[in-house]
Amino acid sequence: MKFSTDIIRIMEKHKGLIYLCRIRTGTEPERKSGLKTEGGTGTGIRGEKTEVECRSASTSTTLEGRVRMIYTTKIIVARTHVQREGARTCHSTRRTHWKVLRVFAVTCAFLLALGAVMTSSWLSRVPRKPDIDTNKWWGVGAPPGGAADDTIRRFKIEFNNTVVQALRSRIRERRPLTKPLEGVQSEYGMNTVYLEKILEHWQGTYDFQKRAEMLNRFDHYKTQIQGLDIHFIRAKPAQRDFQGTVLPLLLLHGWPSSSKEFDKIIPMLTTPRKGRGFVFEVVAADLPGFGFSEGTTKPGLNPVQIGVIMRNLMLRLGFQQFYVHAGDWGAQCAMHMATLFPEHVLGFHTNMPLSSMMVSQLKIVLGAFYPSFLVDSKYLDRIYPLKNFFTYLIRESGYFHIQATKPDTIGVALTDSPSGLASYIMEKMAICTNRDQLNTPHGGLEGLNIEDVLDTVTIAWVNSCIVTSMRLYAEGYSTKSSEISILHEIPTIVPTGAINFRYEVVYQPDWILKDKFPNLVHSTTHDFGGHFVALEYPNELVDDIFAATEEFLRFHASK
Amino acid sequence: MKFSTDIIRIMEKHKGLIYLCRIRTGTEPERKSGLKTEGGTGTGIRGEKTEVECRSASTSTTLEGRVRMIYTTKIIVARTHVQREGARTCHSTRRTHWKVLRVFAVTCAFLLALGAVMTSSWLSRVPRKPDIDTNKWWGVGAPPGGAADDTIRRFKIEFNNTVVQALRSRIRERRPLTKPLEGVQSEYGMNTVYLEKILEHWQGTYDFQKRAEMLNRFDHYKTQIQGLDIHFIRAKPAQRDFQGTVLPLLLLHGWPSSSKEFDKIIPMLTTPRKGRGFVFEVVAADLPGFGFSEGTTKPGLNPVQIGVIMRNLMLRLGFQQFYVHAGDWGAQCAMHMATLFPEHVLGFHTNMPLSSMMVSQLKIVLGAFYPSFLVDSKYLDRIYPLKNFFTYLIRESGYFHIQATKPDTIGVALTDSPSGLASYIMEKMAICTNRDQLNTPHGGLEGLNIEDVLDTVTIAWVNSCIVTSMRLYAEGYSTKSSEISILHEIPTIVPTGAINFRYEVVYQPDWILKDKFPNLVHSTTHDFGGHFVALEYPNELVDDIFAATEEFLRFHASK
Repeated sequence: MKFSTDIIRIMEKHKGLIYLCRIRTGTEPERKSGLKTEGGTGTGIRGEKTEVECRSASTSTTLEGRVRMIYTTKIIVARTHVQREGARTCHSTRRTHWKVLRVFAVTCAFLLALGAVMTSSWLSRVPRKPDIDTNKWWGVGAPPGGAADDTIRRFKIEFNNTVVQALRSRIRERRPLTKPLEGVQSEYGMNTVYLEKILEHWQGTYDFQKRAEMLNRFDHYKTQIQGLDIHFIRAKPAQRDFQGTVLPLLLLHGWPSSSKEFDKIIPMLTTPRKGRGFVFEVVAADLPGFGFSEGTTKPGLNPVQIGVIMRNLMLRLGFQQFYVHAGDWGAQCAMHMATLFPEHVLGFHTNMPLSSMMVSQLKIVLGAFYPSFLVDSKYLDRIYPLKNFFTYLIRESGYFHIQATKPDTIGVALTDSPSGLASYIMEKMAICTNRDQLNTPHGGLEGLNIEDVLDTVTIAWVNSCIVTSMRLYAEGYSTKSSEISILHEIPTIVPTGAINFRYEVVYQPDWILKDKFPNLVHSTTHDFGGHFVALEYPNELVDDIFAATEEFLRFHASK
Repeated sequence: MKFSTDIIRIMEKHKGLIYLCRIRTGTEPERKSGLKTEGGTGTGIRGEKTEVECRSASTSTTLEGRVRMIYTTKIIVARTHVQREGARTCHSTRRTHWKVLRVFAVTCAFLLALGAVMTSSWLSRVPRKPDIDTNKWWGVGAPPGGAADDTIRRFKIEFNNTVVQALRSRIRERRPLTKPLEGVQSEYGMNTVYLEKILEHWQGTYDFQKRAEMLNRFDHYKTQIQGLDIHFIRAKPAQRDFQGTVLPLLLLHGWPSSSKEFDKIIPMLTTPRKGRGFVFEVVAADLPGFGFSEGTTKPGLNPVQIGVIMRNLMLRLGFQQFYVHAGDWGAQCAMHMATLFPEHVLGFHTNMPLSSMMVSQLKIVLGAFYPSFLVDSKYLDRIYPLKNFFTYLIRESGYFHIQATKPDTIGVALTDSPSGLASYIMEKMAICTNRDQLNTPHGGLEGLNIEDVLDTVTIAWVNSCIVTSMRLYAEGYSTKSSEISILHEIPTIVPTGAINFRYEVVYQPDWILKDKFPNLVHSTTHDFGGHFVALEYPNELVDDIFAATEEFLRFHASK
């Protein structure tokens, strides 16, 4: 193998530099006549051992030489005879390594660009709307034969005496609670010293009857939708001789609330405002399994399906077209409803605007590399650094995790112990109102009126609905149905209004929200307020609903 | 720029193939004399537009030509004059793109290798042992002046009648539990229909006094360590005239257990065995805040600090050197104890062997690319595919998440409701015994004896210690102290024995365990059994403790 030996010698002779070596085939006359040509090139790297292999191919007319080194280059020669070229054929090319680095960089850039184009194309695919059975039966067992019960019945909230006395007695006879650790306020969860004060008030001075009366100032109803008795408040405009338009507005709450969350804003929404040519007729419904609405006995009642039930409720009440305001899980239900039924939903307003689209998630993650490109510097700390955001999410999402996986386990204790239920609900209402107050005994709870908080706990207690309400997390994250993940990827085209309060669980800037809500026609951002803002900042919320609706009307008028 | 134009034409003429083109400098005589040489090469890619640039360098003796395409190659020529080479200089090299790909691959491999070497060097750094105060005071307030109370007091387990009657009444008077969804067994957590049967037994036929008697067949003691009253069982070998060695063995349990978990294995460990020249004197302690041991009122009592307390307990009992068997959190405490005090710990046996070292975690993640390289095919499904493992972990770790973040919140309900406490503890005991039985009403619980399970719940109830026990999760994952993460990275050099049961929460093959336990001298893997194996498979566990101890003795004898 002369060929091999020669090349090695050449390479070694010039060790210490980078060389370009070339191999020629054939004789000089052959090359001149064009019959035999230069073979190819190989590069040798400074200080690296070089090895050349030759072997005959099956046809025995070609010979393959290969130079192996850190960079490997193939040499193909036309004939078996190889001439040694000598020093003249080697040319110093110190810049060869730059060449290779550039090849590497360009290849990387190309692959990245290709990846970006493919990902972007994949992310921008809009899936087909899933087929949803709008008459699915959620009642016990099989749907009964004959016509469905479509009566709308008057309903009155009652905290009856037996239930209240039993509740009071359970609170009083609670077992001694474990004290917080020395120096700890709310860092390990509910501060039990603070909790005891609230429990004393709940069992001693909280006026169950007065609170029920307060809630009963609205007209309450129940009607059966898809097998479930749904409770709702229906509030018509206070001013009967109002000359403007009356717009139907559905209000949907989240966990652990009920329509009670809206008791402050309902009268404000039904009262005409100077400069507004419209006012609302409000329907505030309890989600199935929440408040006074019946829970299902069947698996699968997720936010999409609740959206269907709520749409059917509005149709039952004679509203073919309506507006929706919602937060928390209610916002998820309302969003899916708007995506599925844009013919019914004229506008969607929410205090928890959220695009769960993959492209939006990706933007937020990539935005971590250059946050101020993604978010206005004023609101930067609502998302970035992601480390802080995730630390907070992990710290506060234990309840979410257990409700999404084992609601029935934890539900036993919460159904049986009013003190435990109060602790569980109140800690979360506190954190969601102000996440930065773990160093206080109330942990953020005092941003809310304690009577409102206790109304929420009382309603969950008397209806014994904590398990059915928690199951929504399991249904919302069930892997058994793809309808949720599909709907998340379909833009919601109805005109949308977003209001961002300071301590809402998540924050997304408008340009990300527009992935999901291309017709985001109104957006407000406040540097105060939390998650239960209908209780905490009712005025600001109602102002925004009116302002957004003005934009919704303009949107439809311009079409 | 004739040079440029010529080359482009050549490339275009042969479009549709990949060519290798070469540029020559100087005249033929110059080249022959060796004064001028071949310049270099450029590659053209099939179908791609090619561009060649020439410019003079500052010395005006060189000219640089550059072929720009997807892969960029520099051409350096010695003189300004460039001859067109024509078709003869172009040689078909379809394999050129392989060359570039190989350059890319080799570069990637090099960078990966470099990264791996750097990471490996970083991962293999062993940090310095943290300074631990072995006398830290965990009792209420400041340590009292004067000599510490080091008395060892006899203790008897009592389920007193008042407590039992109150408990029974609370169970009987539980609020109606929410039924499981139609067709659901344990998929949403505890099946309440099944739970009600257990609750009926607990309040009706479970014999509190008989169970206390059963536990009292051992000698129980309490002694104050670092301000906390620690409860323990001390069991000497049954056979007084045993001729062999009596080895002290500390047993440490995990959550939600107590020393009760070991009541089956203690008599087996203290009974001499044929062919073994040793038997054990057992100390089975309740971790602080668990069972009958006092919980701390101070933050920071993590597994490292509990390891210190347990070491001090053994010293108090006169054991300067001893063996440890432990599972779950007990295994974490024992591991840290062994790492800190190899002079005291002669051997560490565990049924939950786990290396939390970063290098081990990395191996497991990287192993996902080629699992059978990492784990014996028989045990592959205990880790891989990682997707299944993480799905299971997420599904089952809600309790972990909430206990690590908000133990005090959830603790209120669990302290107040025995039904809730039973549901919470039993669901986890079920899952950890057999994670594949969610489709049954018991969810895996029937792998255990229900009396053992109810002992565990009863002990947690009568001591009202669920909150203090759950706080261990918060302390174990507190970001306020670095001692845990430091100790995780320090190899535990004491001889170690591992037994792997089928349904243990995690599984790591021996070669990964050896990252943390370089002296892993004994290892057994079973295809049955779960997490609470001292209750489920006491014989197999005790066999293994004896076998491992034989290896520990051999290890020390060989030194």
